Amino acid sequence: MKILTFAGSLRTDSCNKKFAREALRLAKEAGAEGEFIDLKDYPMPVYDGDIETNSGIPETTVALGKKIAAADAIIISTPEYNGSIPGILKNALDWLSRDKPVTITGKHLLLLAASPGALGGIRALWHSRQPFEVLGVHVYPDMIALPNAYNMFDEQGKLKDEKTIQRLKTTLEQFIKHVG
Amino acid sequence: MKILTFAGSLRTDSCNKKFAREALRLAKEAGAEGEFIDLKDYPMPVYDGDIETNSGIPETTVALGKKIAAADAIIISTPEYNGSIPGILKNALDWLSRDKPVTITGKHLLLLAASPGALGGIRALWHSRQPFEVLGVHVYPDMIALPNAYNMFDEQGKLKDEKTIQRLKTTLEQFIKHVG
Amino acid sequence: MKILTFAGSLRTDSCNKKFAREALRLAKEAGAEGEFIDLKDYPMPVYDGDIETNSGIPETTVALGKKIAAADAIIISTPEYNGSIPGILKNALDWLSRDKPVTITGKHLLLLAASPGALGGIRALWHSRQPFEVLGVHVYPDMIALPNAYNMFDEQGKLKDEKTIQRLKTTLEQFIKHVG
Amino acid sequence: MKILTFAGSLRTDSCNKKFAREALRLAKEAGAEGEFIDLKDYPMPVYDGDIETNSGIPETTVALGKKIAAADAIIISTPEYNGSIPGILKNALDWLSRDKPVTITGKHLLLLAASPGALGGIRALWHSRQPFEVLGVHVYPDMIALPNAYNMFDEQGKLKDEKTIQRLKTTLEQFIKHVG
Repeated sequence: MKILTFAGSLRTDSCNKKFAREALRLAKEAGAEGEFIDLKDYPMPVYDGDIETNSGIPETTVALGKKIAAADAIIISTPEYNGSIPGILKNALDWLSRDKPVTITGKHLLLLAASPGALGGIRALWHSRQPFEVLGVHVYPDMIALPNAYNMFDEQGKLKDEKTIQRLKTTLEQFIKHVG
Repeated sequence: MKILTFAGSLRTDSCNKKFAREALRLAKEAGAEGEFIDLKDYPMPVYDGDIETNSGIPETTVALGKKIAAADAIIISTPEYNGSIPGILKNALDWLSRDKPVTITGKHLLLLAASPGALGGIRALWHSRQPFEVLGVHVYPDMIALPNAYNMFDEQGKLKDEKTIQRLKTTLEQFIKHVG
Repeated sequence: MKILTFAGSLRTDSCNKKFAREALRLAKEAGAEGEFIDLKDYPMPVYDGDIETNSGIPETTVALGKKIAAADAIIISTPEYNGSIPGILKNALDWLSRDKPVTITGKHLLLLAASPGALGGIRALWHSRQPFEVLGVHVYPDMIALPNAYNMFDEQGKLKDEKTIQRLKTTLEQFIKHVG
Repeated sequence: MKILTFAGSLRTDSCNKKFAREALRLAKEAGAEGEFIDLKDYPMPVYDGDIETNSGIPETTVALGKKIAAADAIIISTPEYNGSIPGILKNALDWLSRDKPVTITGKHLLLLAASPGALGGIRALWHSRQPFEVLGVHVYPDMIALPNAYNMFDEQGKLKDEKTIQRLKTTLEQFIKHVG
């Protein structure tokens, strides 16, 4: 199984990028293949129908859509911006949905969130499901919200807490088995 | 009472811009003052913590925040992108939330939606409430979803359907009365 | 494949019971087996922890849980009560979740809605997903909202509108294929 | 200002009943009047349109509707059942919405939640807003989720943690000021 993983954040030092990378590392231990990509390498303008009319779909959107098409499953770790999906992630999804056929439709998706707060981005997780589901994505029911995220990774970006590692491992194994 | 109204869309010919303008026109008939602004005049990059660290909050965000601060109430007409709040609107909100104190906190907001489809953007309306409410905005319970929106405005951008006009008028009067 | 179908409504003449029955009939045409059950045959008190402590889980809950356990997939047609999941359906779910292991966990679910209004229960559909997903149910992304439902069934309770029948058939075939 | 407060739970020893009582006590300190009621004193059957047709609205629903009508504002402390509004609370709301005119429409509502878990019922809080808002209730943007609730009250049912008390006090003062 081929997994594509990325974060719903652009910041270079984002803990969601770390969480997404760790998810890939542990998914590989569980037998999957895959790659992590950084949305910073796929810059897109804020969606504007006039841009689409005049210049078409951005090449970065098409490239991201191809990466998604080549994957069997997707894992996104998203920050929580104002209790909801970040504009940056929703904007990427809005562009992706304009490139037909929409390659994310029918894919399996595992949502993760990392947040410095005590709730770990739980509101973002539940609020982010809807636009993916509207696009026909099978969003896995179980999700992981990682609180206190600024203290959860070591200097190499690896998860330090054994309980979190086990929780992530178990969820990944179940997700991989479900996607089959 | 001073109302600020805008659309959650950038496209020049957006029916949500028309709906937001019509809401302002009818709100003025109901005794309010106010202005319509076009988010195309407040271009912002996709949110990136590195941009914020290196360049600070964009001037357009600060300017939009000041417009909001000067208003007693806000009316936003939003398109529905993938059953949810458009990335462009969420991105503006994400930037606004970084400019402290957040001027939209405590404001009253009426949400409208116009959509070419049969449901009028009803999913976007309900899904868009949460990030505003997380920021402490009083989102008015009643909302209006305008279906079949490409056929609802005349060449001057005015609403053609008398029933829709009456519905909007009544909602605006109740909203204005509530905001007081 | 064995499908269990029921309505999130108790009223004898409920159009959601008709919709659930029609879904079963068409699912059988598509090669599935299954049965329709009426929640009126599984009466449960309003959930009260004191009842659970004193009398345990109701027999009707246990019986419903067994029906669910025996099915490969579930189809629920739900009315929209106040823009959300009906209390009666949520109450059944709350009781089911107290009977361990929870038999609905890991099942596939297709949500339908029938409503006399113009929106067909679309708000109920999207709002009802969350409690099922919290319980680990794979809620199918596509759903069907049937507007104007009082006029959509003939005297035998069969769907009259050919387009609706085709839409339901296609969705059922895709759902059955996905559950596989 | 007259406040009505109750819990979305029936269990006698419910920590949400304690939280609702404490909210009333502190609201009184902040200058409000009001009363706590126990939904166990307003037993209602699970909603069934046949019951309504044959027997009308239950007397308990009418009585609860009158209590609500007499209040300026409502405070509900709700448990989280399966990441969402409890069936018992939704069922009461479904019955209330059948008794016209609906007395809760236009009222101000502060939502609280107490839960033994680490998230304090945060998913229930956000998910519970929608049916109230559909009924035209002004749900206050700020809400309080109380985690670890089994250890938060003393034997008299009073909050033990000073920080929680201060947070509740501040929120109540702001809510009372807003309702005006």
